[in-house]
Parts: sequence; C-alpha cells; structure tokens
Amino acid sequence: MSAVKKIAVLTSGGDSQGMNAAVRAVVRSGLFYGLEVYGIQRGYQGLLNNDIFSMDIRSVGDIIQRGGTILQSARCLEFKTPEGQQKGAQILRDRGIDGLVVIGGDGSYQGAEKLSKLGIKTMGLPGTIDNDISFTDYTIGFDTAVGIVVDAVNKLRDTMSSHERASVVEVMGRHAGDIALHAGLAAGAETILVPEVPFDLNEVADRMRQNFDNGKRHSIVIVAEGVGKGEEVVEAIKKRQPSLEPRATVLGHIQRGGSPTPFDRNLASRLGDFAVRSLIAGESNKACGMIGGEMILTDIEKVVATKKEFDMDLYELASRLSQ
Amino acid sequence: MSAVKKIAVLTSGGDSQGMNAAVRAVVRSGLFYGLEVYGIQRGYQGLLNNDIFSMDIRSVGDIIQRGGTILQSARCLEFKTPEGQQKGAQILRDRGIDGLVVIGGDGSYQGAEKLSKLGIKTMGLPGTIDNDISFTDYTIGFDTAVGIVVDAVNKLRDTMSSHERASVVEVMGRHAGDIALHAGLAAGAETILVPEVPFDLNEVADRMRQNFDNGKRHSIVIVAEGVGKGEEVVEAIKKRQPSLEPRATVLGHIQRGGSPTPFDRNLASRLGDFAVRSLIAGESNKACGMIGGEMILTDIEKVVATKKEFDMDLYELASRLSQ
Amino acid sequence: MSAVKKIAVLTSGGDSQGMNAAVRAVVRSGLFYGLEVYGIQRGYQGLLNNDIFSMDIRSVGDIIQRGGTILQSARCLEFKTPEGQQKGAQILRDRGIDGLVVIGGDGSYQGAEKLSKLGIKTMGLPGTIDNDISFTDYTIGFDTAVGIVVDAVNKLRDTMSSHERASVVEVMGRHAGDIALHAGLAAGAETILVPEVPFDLNEVADRMRQNFDNGKRHSIVIVAEGVGKGEEVVEAIKKRQPSLEPRATVLGHIQRGGSPTPFDRNLASRLGDFAVRSLIAGESNKACGMIGGEMILTDIEKVVATKKEFDMDLYELASRLSQ
Amino acid sequence: MSAVKKIAVLTSGGDSQGMNAAVRAVVRSGLFYGLEVYGIQRGYQGLLNNDIFSMDIRSVGDIIQRGGTILQSARCLEFKTPEGQQKGAQILRDRGIDGLVVIGGDGSYQGAEKLSKLGIKTMGLPGTIDNDISFTDYTIGFDTAVGIVVDAVNKLRDTMSSHERASVVEVMGRHAGDIALHAGLAAGAETILVPEVPFDLNEVADRMRQNFDNGKRHSIVIVAEGVGKGEEVVEAIKKRQPSLEPRATVLGHIQRGGSPTPFDRNLASRLGDFAVRSLIAGESNKACGMIGGEMILTDIEKVVATKKEFDMDLYELASRLSQ
Repeated sequence: MSAVKKIAVLTSGGDSQGMNAAVRAVVRSGLFYGLEVYGIQRGYQGLLNNDIFSMDIRSVGDIIQRGGTILQSARCLEFKTPEGQQKGAQILRDRGIDGLVVIGGDGSYQGAEKLSKLGIKTMGLPGTIDNDISFTDYTIGFDTAVGIVVDAVNKLRDTMSSHERASVVEVMGRHAGDIALHAGLAAGAETILVPEVPFDLNEVADRMRQNFDNGKRHSIVIVAEGVGKGEEVVEAIKKRQPSLEPRATVLGHIQRGGSPTPFDRNLASRLGDFAVRSLIAGESNKACGMIGGEMILTDIEKVVATKKEFDMDLYELASRLSQ
Repeated sequence: MSAVKKIAVLTSGGDSQGMNAAVRAVVRSGLFYGLEVYGIQRGYQGLLNNDIFSMDIRSVGDIIQRGGTILQSARCLEFKTPEGQQKGAQILRDRGIDGLVVIGGDGSYQGAEKLSKLGIKTMGLPGTIDNDISFTDYTIGFDTAVGIVVDAVNKLRDTMSSHERASVVEVMGRHAGDIALHAGLAAGAETILVPEVPFDLNEVADRMRQNFDNGKRHSIVIVAEGVGKGEEVVEAIKKRQPSLEPRATVLGHIQRGGSPTPFDRNLASRLGDFAVRSLIAGESNKACGMIGGEMILTDIEKVVATKKEFDMDLYELASRLSQ
Repeated sequence: MSAVKKIAVLTSGGDSQGMNAAVRAVVRSGLFYGLEVYGIQRGYQGLLNNDIFSMDIRSVGDIIQRGGTILQSARCLEFKTPEGQQKGAQILRDRGIDGLVVIGGDGSYQGAEKLSKLGIKTMGLPGTIDNDISFTDYTIGFDTAVGIVVDAVNKLRDTMSSHERASVVEVMGRHAGDIALHAGLAAGAETILVPEVPFDLNEVADRMRQNFDNGKRHSIVIVAEGVGKGEEVVEAIKKRQPSLEPRATVLGHIQRGGSPTPFDRNLASRLGDFAVRSLIAGESNKACGMIGGEMILTDIEKVVATKKEFDMDLYELASRLSQ
Repeated sequence: MSAVKKIAVLTSGGDSQGMNAAVRAVVRSGLFYGLEVYGIQRGYQGLLNNDIFSMDIRSVGDIIQRGGTILQSARCLEFKTPEGQQKGAQILRDRGIDGLVVIGGDGSYQGAEKLSKLGIKTMGLPGTIDNDISFTDYTIGFDTAVGIVVDAVNKLRDTMSSHERASVVEVMGRHAGDIALHAGLAAGAETILVPEVPFDLNEVADRMRQNFDNGKRHSIVIVAEGVGKGEEVVEAIKKRQPSLEPRATVLGHIQRGGSPTPFDRNLASRLGDFAVRSLIAGESNKACGMIGGEMILTDIEKVVATKKEFDMDLYELASRLSQ
C-alpha cells in the first residue's frame, strides 16, 4: 500500500543541469508505481498560481539530455509567508495531491519543510551546481558545471602558453568553494582561492612570478565568487607583480547551462526514483542524498542547519600536484 | 622514514583516459615527498628493455588534459614467464628502484604481484575504461568512456527521430556491462544488453515495435561487446520485426580516447597520490581503489580473484525509466 | 508584388544537421515578407498524406541549434510516379499553396522539378552531409559532419599513439569523397581513400609500415564508404603488412547528428532566406547554392545532371602535408 | 628554380586557433619543395634575439589539432624602429634566410612589409580571430572563435529559458563586429550590437520587453567589445526596463583557445602552403587570403590601408530571422 496517491514535482531556485533528468525520473517512477503525477510550472510561484498540470510518460520524453528545467523556476516572496504556505498546501489538498518532490537548493528545501508541517508529504532533491548542500556527496549539476569550467580553462591554457601570461578565472560558489576546488584540481590550476581557506594575494602573486621564472608557461588562478571578483584579484596581483599582466575571465551563468554529464543524469535519475519510493514508503520532510554511493534520507531541518564540510584533503592534494 | 627511496611508474594493457593524470600524480607526489621518480616506457616490455628514465616536475607538465598515456603501453609475453619477472626485478634492483606503481587492468596487476614477491614494493592503479576491476567503485577512464558513448547516442537520436528508426550501438565491455549500463541509463536507451543479464532478442524486437506503435520516435539498443556484435543484434531484430530497419554503430577505440573528464582526472590524481603515500608507508602488493568516496587498499590477489559485482538496482532503474 | 502568396517547406531524403536552421529561415523570412507559410511533415509522403500545417514565428523557436529535422523525413515510392506527382500538386493547389521549398539531396530535387512542371513554384536547398550536390560549394550539414569525423579521429589518435597502432576510419560518402577529403586534411590523416582517386592498398600498407619505421607513432587511414568497407581495407592491409594490426572504426549515422556548426547554421539561414526571396521574385524550378560566398540559382535539371567536381588540389595538399 | 632557399616562419600578435596548422603547412610544404625551414620563437622579439631553430617534418607532428602557437608570440617595441628592422633583416641574412612567413594581424603585416624593403622576401598570413583583415573572406581562427561564442550562448539559453531572463554576451572585436555578427546569426540572438551599425539602447531594451511579452522565453544580446563593455549595456537596459534583470557574460580570452575547427585547420593549411609556393615563385611583400574559395595575393600596403567591409546583408538577415 502506497502512502501517497497523487504526487507533484517542481523545480525551484537557480536551475542546474540534470534537473530535467530528475523530473523525468520522478514522473516515470511515479507512473511505474501506479501514482498520478503532476508538474508545477515556475516553482512555488506556480503552485500559488495553481499552474499545475498532469504529466504522462511522453511529457518527459527527450528531456534527459537538455539543460535547464522544463518546469522552469522563479522567485516567490509570497511563499515565504505563513499565509502563502497555507495557500500552497490548500491548493495541493484541493487537487488531492498528497506528495511533493522539490528539486532545488537550501531555500527550496525550507519550503518543502513548511508544507510537510501542513500535511503534505515532501521530499527534497539537491539541485544546484554549487555542491553546497550537506548530507549528499554531490548535488545535481555540480559535475557538469565543473566540466564547463575545466573546458574553459583548457582553452585559456592554449592562449596563455602562447603569450606566457597569467589568467584569473572567477567561478560560481558564493558560500562553497567546491566548484573552484574540483575544477582547479582537474585543470591543474596553480592557485585555488575559496572562502573556506584564508590566503594572501601578495604571496599568490609572488609564487606566480616564481613559477614563470622556473619555466612554467602559464599560471591559472581559480577564484570562487564567494572570495571576491576576478577583477579585484587581477588588480591585487598586478599591484604586487606588475610584470604578470593577468587577465580575468568571468564564466557567469554559462556554468549553469549545457547538456548534463552522464554522471549528473544518473545521479538525478537515482535521486528522483528514490524520492518517489520514499514517498510511497511513507517518508516525509526528508532530503534525498547520495553518500558513499548510497541513497540516503536526512531530515530537511538537519540538512538546512548543517554547513557542508569542505574537503581539505583534496585542497591540499591540488596544491601538492600543481607545483 | 619512507619505506621507499626511488620509485618507478608504468602504464600497461589497453590505455584509458586519465592515465596521464595518474602518472602526473605519481611523479609530483613522489617528488613532493622527497623520492626519486622514474618513468618506464611501454609497460613491462619497456622494463625488460631497460627503457627507464628519470622524471621531474616538468616531465608531467601539460599532460593532465591529454588522452592516451605519455608512457605508452605494449604487450609483453616474456614478462609472463618466471624468467622475465626475475629479469624485470633485477633491472629495477640494479637501478636502486624499490617501489613500482603499475597503472592498468587485471593482467597488469598480476605482473605487479609477481614483482612484489621478488622484493619490489608494488601498487596497482585501476586504469581501464571497462570498470571491470573489483574493490573500486570506478576505474580510471570509465567516466570519460561513458561520456563518449552518451555523446554518440545523442547524435544518433537526432537522425533516428527524423526517420523514426531504431539504432543498435555496440560499446566496449567484454566481461562487464558497466559502460553499457551507465551510458544506457544516461542516454535514456530503451534496451541495454549486458553479459550479466540474460535476454531474448525476440522480446526485445517486439517491445521496440510496440514502442514505435505507442508514439516513440526512436529506439536505442546499447549492446556490450561481451554479448555479441552489434551487427548480429541488428540481424536478429530485423528477422523478428522486419519493419524496424535498425542500424548498427560500432564505436570501437573512440571510447578509449579524448580528454579525460574532470571526474577521471580527479580520481586519477587521488589514486596516484594515494599509491605513493602507501608505498612510503611500507605497503606493497596492493591495489588502490575508491570505495564510497574513500581511498582503499586491497591485496592484489584478492582483487584479481574477485569478479566485480554488477549493479542490478541500477539496471532495473534504467528499465523503469526508459518506458 | 510577390509571385507567391502561400508557401510550404519540407525536408526529404537523409536528414542533415542544419535542416532545422533552413526550415526556420524559410518560415521566418516568408512571414517577414508577408507570406503564409506551411510545414509538410515527413517529406513527399507527408505531402501525399496531406500532413500539412500552418507555421508561425514560434513554430521554429529554439530549433536552430538542434540536429535532425522537426519536419522529419521519409521515403516515398508513390511520389516517384506521375500519378503521385499529380496528386501532390493537386493537394498543394487545393490549399492555395503556390510555392514549395524542398530541403534535401538529388532525389529530393527531382521531386521539386516534377512539381514545378505541374505549376507549383519550387526551390531546392542542398541538405545532405555528403557535399555531393553540384553548383554549391557546400551542402547544409557537411561542415558539421566533417567536424564529427575529425573529433573521432582526435580520440583515436590518443589511443593509437599509446599503442603505436594504425587505424582505419570509414566515413560517409557513397559517390563523393568530400567528407573523407576535408576531414582527412583537417585530421592530418596519412592516407585518404576516395572514389575519385585510384589507389593500391599494397602501396598504402607499405607506406604505413615505412612511416612507423621512420618514427611516426600513429597512422590514420580515412576511407569513404564509396570505396569499400573499413573492415575490407583492414584485411587488405593486414595481409600485406601483418605487423600493423590496424583497427576499423565505422562512424555510421553519428555523422548525421549533433548540433550544427555555426557555419552550417549560417549557410542554412542564408539559403533558406534566399529561396523565399527567389520565390517572391517569380523564380521556380531552381536549386539554391553558395558559390564563392555568393547565393546563386541554377536550374534543377542542370544541378541533377552535373556531377560535382572533386577538389584534386586539396587532395594533393593533404598528401603533401601528411608526410 | 626557386626564388628562395631558406625560409623562416613566425607567429606574431594575439594568437589564434589554427596558427599551428599554418606553421605545420609552411614547414611541410617548404620541406616538400626542397627548402630549408626555420622557426622563430616569440615573434619579432625572437627574431631580434636570434631565437631561430631548424625545423623538420617531425617538429610539426601532432600540432594540427592544438590551439595556441608552438612558436609563441610576444610584443616587440624595438622592431617598430628602423634600427630594429635593420637588425632583424641582418640576422636573417647572416643565416642565409631569404624568405619569411609572418602569421598574425595588421601590426604583424607591417613588420613583414618593412623587412621586404630590406631585401627579405615576405608573406603575411591572416592569423587573428577578429576577421578584421581585408582581402580575405576569413582569417585563421575566426570560425573557431565563433563556435566558442555560439556554444556559450547555447548554455546560457538553457538557464535563461528556465528563468525567462535576458542575457548580454560581450565578445571580442575591437574594430570589427564579425564575431558578434556570425555568432549572433548562428545562435539566434535577438540583438547584435557592432561598431559598424548605430543603435539606441533604449530601443533595444523596449524590444526585449516586447519579446518577453509576446511569449519569448529568453532574449540574448551579443555585444562586440568595440561597442562597449557588456556591463555597461546591462546597466543601460536595466535603467530603461528594470523588469528585465539582464546578466552580463564576458567570454574574454576563452575565444582565442581550444582546438581549431576543421574549417580553420584547412584554411590555415591552404594558406600556409600557398605562402610557400608564392615565395618560391618569387613573390614578396604580399598578404595571402582566401576570396570566394580561391587563394589570392594582395600587396601588404593595400591590405593594411583597407578597412574590411562589414556584411550588411548578413546583419539584416540576422534581424529578419530573430524575430
């Protein structure tokens, strides 16, 4: 006996690659297990607007490979109020929808928590490129975003080597340095600046000068936006070592687009299916995550209250290998 | 106090993407910890030919992003004999090399095991696209290979949809269906044929016919080479359902080339560094693997004797989602 | 005063990348110039089935970057008969459609010619990856297909270099060696086998052996399918030079998929727009082409009757540079 | 009888993709025709430093697919003086080098002109991504740069569609809007701002607002850097239409890196070979270009003195199609 009969799915917050794969998994698993499945357009705003529609197997055909989210996303101040939450829960109840899967980041999770208190069974899926959600090793979109950054750095390397110049690349990550760290390690960046580790830009500039003097033909600095603007880092380096002439590149929203990698598609597929099975099993107010390769449920409150740990070992490995 | 002073590294067996990142990590970590590091060209054959050279930090510059292996690889029948193994160990001893990192598959691991019995401290790193080595969740190159298959299927999808045709894609994996499974799930393939799961081609053909009749515009079958030739599958399907007109695509060695994904580069970097630190700590005759995100050592004998388990849950998920 | 009021567009024959960009250009230019525009689904078969629908600006939104063709394609034996052609012309007349743009290859052009004889104003656009249509320097899809082949060869190169092995790549081109030639030149292939130039496989094998002996680390042979199967070439080389151990790769329909390059999108956009303007100007029974950068009209009969010339200069350049 | 015996090649100014393919063609064609060939490291600065080395067939092996330039590039104020030019010519004469191929932009061409006056036979090849050199339809690197921009816009589209937002993409082109135009047409950008065409940002903002109101889900503005900073355009749009919330992306030097497209490789190969054959035929002080598919020589003075014409027809086509 399933604990839910009709479920809905929405995407919320900044979009990320793989959200479509997650939506597809929720819809098809739901149908497979005999549930009715609904899509909500434009996140919580769409919920309050009653922008809800029935989904079948074909609704999610040919989307697994597409970036963005067919359900779209939007900000919604009204849903942050108790009245808005009541209204949302009522709209779902009126339609007989007893389960909801929310794909998004921390802010989106909080909405799911509120709804669960109002009697809707909810599941959160970690959809954000920043990898800043705790109790999951990876968020949906992170692997793709890292790939985009590494691809950009590869291109910069070519032209840097031709001119023996330094490059500063600003990447996403307001609170977490994970994109900077994983992309920096993979790209062989000489310097990785993240909010989690203190640094001295004068030392950075001196080491870059040293590296060129030792025969390196390029020098790449990856900066998480949580640390500061790429332009600012460029200015500080120039001031200390005017000979370096570094250039800034700001990747911006490019990092949130593009076809998801197989890793992200499969992560999203597993999580979407797991969310549906957890709802059927009677769970609610839980965040779904992958830890050590396993699907794990954690209380949303706990996930929201816990800051994700930064992988210091990996950071030190990156330093060791980029000499 | 380090248990080794001079270490060497070789790549052996079929090459895979990320081998260069692993070589770079072994060299730079070794140097970082004060060891001398040597490269051996063309695998065990190069060892017997004394084709060994000193490596410094610059020897592995600008290789992290390159496919293939700068150390090259080759078959070597002589090294399968006790005399060959004795000779190899002697050559290493004559140069004062007391540690060896071998990057390759099962066959390569067996050579490392023999050398460890002859007094050389050895470490094996899983370098193969097939993901068919036990006691590691992923092998180096697997993620990139899956990406290449999925990219190819994306391209096929376009033309299949235009013509409403079926496509059979033969991928690598003589003993393991992992590439077929992970690529099939990520590509939304309707059918995944692997050596680990029995199937009936008549049923497959009938289901494909059914799917088209239900409005699907394409139908993709992924076949691991361990199951049979793509052409044979095409013939069997045609015989049962002549209207389908499926086409075969054989991806072949393309799957072993190209720039490694960030995932593979970082996996290789972690494993290479871990192998060096394990040698320093006095370990020998061990395979390095990543299990649940952690670096783990396992006796080479045990790794070689154990067949990797197939992920049946993932296989069933793929069926559930590709309706 | 426009010579046409209502136009339709169809895609026919094998699909090619950029067909969607061409459809988009026909639709939007048509609307811009005040025409009504209709789409015909599944080529001439769709015409006979009266599978015709009105298109507006939004009908072609977000398709410029997609491979395949939203109008789909299909074979149609009936339309090769005079009765079929009469029926097709009547269906168009009944709907008041007085102009038709056909995107496809030689076979598709012949249909357009027949319809023009029956009073429908027609334009042909060269949509095929093979670049085998005369009176245009490039066909729509050719640049993308060449890119896919070159990308595949890049991947093969990595693994060939690791193992010092030879590779035989079979590419599309039944009657024309253009894909083989342009991809072979761009990929630095050592040997390019095309239907337009006689060759001796023994000489090819001997030169490959020679190249390896001279220190080359890989040897790539590109074979147009018009010359024979990749497997056959492999067998002939092996027989003459057993030490080479070449491998065959058959790219197949992958060459027809994927997002079109900017070159193909812009070529398609220019041609689609030019076709519409030519219909408005009263032209009919013409093939649109780009020659020396200019848009040119040629009688369809002449295009169909003329074999495209092979660029011998470019072929010789490829030989000169791949030493 | 060849007019030259020993030739040298250098790359100068900003690097571009395909420069390596051009270097390869110069070297291999030179050797094929019996010349001695030398490379000059770091442009005119390297010439003055006598940083000149002999090149053989293997020197340019495996570089056709690489971005950047193996000969590197550098600025050189000294070579802008008559004394510097005299010194450069003397260094070449002392080595018996009687021909020089210069790959770069306008500034690089001027150096070649000066050297030709001092008795060195010179050829200029158009190596710059900006496509701002006259008497050639395309410069080496332009096609690749356009591809990088279009790929970035594709990624932005995904996330823009999810959030119904506008995006401003700043691309290279200080004096020429060609990258913006060709990328904008291929990407289906709604607005293309180039130095060659006047515009009113208020009108742009109003049209964007209109498009969203008409149901478009994204709006992309491509800005050539010659027109102004992306950030400035964003501010102007926000001021007029605060509801749009556009974001700026600055692609920067990424546009100059990455593996060259087949088009650029083949263009570079043809031009490099043509330069060598022209030197052998006794030509000097000429720029090599491709016009209407043909290889054409033009006096360097004329090329430098002529501003490249902007393709207004293509610009208007882009407007017509992006409604």
